[in-house]
Amino acid sequence: MPYRQGVLVALAGGVGAARFLRGLVRVVPPGDVLAVVNTADDDTFHGLSVSPDLDSVTYTLAGASNQAQGWGLEGETFATLGALERYDVPTWFGLGDKDLATHLFRTQRLHDGVPLSAVTAEIAIAWGLETRLVPMTDDRVATRITVRDDTGATRELAMQEWFVRERAAPSVIAVRFDGADAARPAPGVIDALHSAATIVICPSNPIISIGPILAVPGIREALVARRDRVVAVSPIVGGAPVRGPADRLMGPLGIDVSCVGVARAYRDFAGAIVIDAVDRDRAAEVEALGVRAVVTDTIMRSPEIAASLARETLAAVA
Amino acid sequence: MPYRQGVLVALAGGVGAARFLRGLVRVVPPGDVLAVVNTADDDTFHGLSVSPDLDSVTYTLAGASNQAQGWGLEGETFATLGALERYDVPTWFGLGDKDLATHLFRTQRLHDGVPLSAVTAEIAIAWGLETRLVPMTDDRVATRITVRDDTGATRELAMQEWFVRERAAPSVIAVRFDGADAARPAPGVIDALHSAATIVICPSNPIISIGPILAVPGIREALVARRDRVVAVSPIVGGAPVRGPADRLMGPLGIDVSCVGVARAYRDFAGAIVIDAVDRDRAAEVEALGVRAVVTDTIMRSPEIAASLARETLAAVA
Repeated sequence: MPYRQGVLVALAGGVGAARFLRGLVRVVPPGDVLAVVNTADDDTFHGLSVSPDLDSVTYTLAGASNQAQGWGLEGETFATLGALERYDVPTWFGLGDKDLATHLFRTQRLHDGVPLSAVTAEIAIAWGLETRLVPMTDDRVATRITVRDDTGATRELAMQEWFVRERAAPSVIAVRFDGADAARPAPGVIDALHSAATIVICPSNPIISIGPILAVPGIREALVARRDRVVAVSPIVGGAPVRGPADRLMGPLGIDVSCVGVARAYRDFAGAIVIDAVDRDRAAEVEALGVRAVVTDTIMRSPEIAASLARETLAAVA
Repeated sequence: MPYRQGVLVALAGGVGAARFLRGLVRVVPPGDVLAVVNTADDDTFHGLSVSPDLDSVTYTLAGASNQAQGWGLEGETFATLGALERYDVPTWFGLGDKDLATHLFRTQRLHDGVPLSAVTAEIAIAWGLETRLVPMTDDRVATRITVRDDTGATRELAMQEWFVRERAAPSVIAVRFDGADAARPAPGVIDALHSAATIVICPSNPIISIGPILAVPGIREALVARRDRVVAVSPIVGGAPVRGPADRLMGPLGIDVSCVGVARAYRDFAGAIVIDAVDRDRAAEVEALGVRAVVTDTIMRSPEIAASLARETLAAVA
């Protein structure tokens, strides 16, 4: 455990962050890691409170996620979802049978008045995690995406509506985080950011995964104050996201779809950024922004590569 | 369709009633049948509103019930319930994956403010039923069973706690229907009872299936007023219930566990009772109570036998 150095805070979205964290907990004691997870993609399906990013991180760290599919649980079945098709309800969001147990438990606990942060801890313990997971806030924040149709008409969609139901096809013209202004960081988040030895911004969508976390009042300010301890991992490699729809959001919102664009978006609060070896020739542009560039292999094809990436990432601000 | 004779109302519990109704709709047009179903066994599991008797009737009439098991759906799986065991929640109530879809839909609709009677109609339509199903009430009525343990201590249990969790083992000393005094019959029930050509009391548990229906103010009175059109089918054959725990309830509550005991319990509002051929020698005792006894085969080993039983039952008050 070469990097035992106090609390490590990781700002995390879904699958990319989950894979990075799986590597991170191979090089530091899992109990030293606090993952602050985006909840602006959370939504309600069939009355159940679904937290996609929290669950992706939990299932991946537990070694239970479906690696091939990139979401959900290994060996999952969909009997309930299939049976729901009989009723007049939308079934485009893929809820697996085992996954449903998590949503049933979470919904019940929230209904009992337990804050999401406490429920998240209960779920992490149930999955045997030593890593600490916390939602960015216990308050409701919801990503809303304004799209323009072929006809020129605009509509505002929830994140899952845009990404899953409409397969990220409609052109994005604006994104907002409903409820963020009034949200409070979850208990312990600000203290952890102030005391953390290192703060990692995981390779997640800058707009809709990291963006909502930064929009919770107090979190961005805490990062700015710790800028020399903040290191990001670029989710953009060779001008395209490793996975997910980041390019469908960054371009329209004026962020260059490149590691340089990510560095520019993060420069106020990140002292360093890890970029992929294929982007080696852009390191100078990144450094010209006042952000140290660390070049390494960032495609996490295996837990071993993820661990190596985590090691390089921590070293960037060591 | 020899018995087309206007609305037929059937008071129904779970599986026994469901099998009788499956026979009934072979001899009368299904759309002429209104089943008024017990909801005092309804309970909440994992935040979901479960209505066991309504679902037994729905699934059976749809031809989708698990015949061998006696409850639930054919080809059912239990992946969600298995996954719930990870969390600190009770999992003794067997909720199947396909069955969960019904509970999710019902819970969501109730949460939206739709009355149970309207949700029940939606579910029946979703399963393609022509038979009309209605809960006895849209209000909450809950069977509470007081039991005495071996130590002599008494406890009050919900119906499913006593029957499923504790396998009907604890001795019963009292039964009450919480909320019944303030409950109102579901829309249309009283009108249907007043205008029905025939009212059938299905072969269901007299105490905890038919009892709660009778406890909803107005229903028993309506039956008394139509006594000559009311016919019951005895759920007790040869001194024991065909299925279920009726004997564990009737004895302690002072009702003889026999077709005579049932006739005595129903005599105020039932003009006739169908008893099994094995109880032929008790017909005179039944008739001495002022209740006409009709003797036939009541064990519904097949839909054909159920249809024959239904035909005999209707003929008893024709």
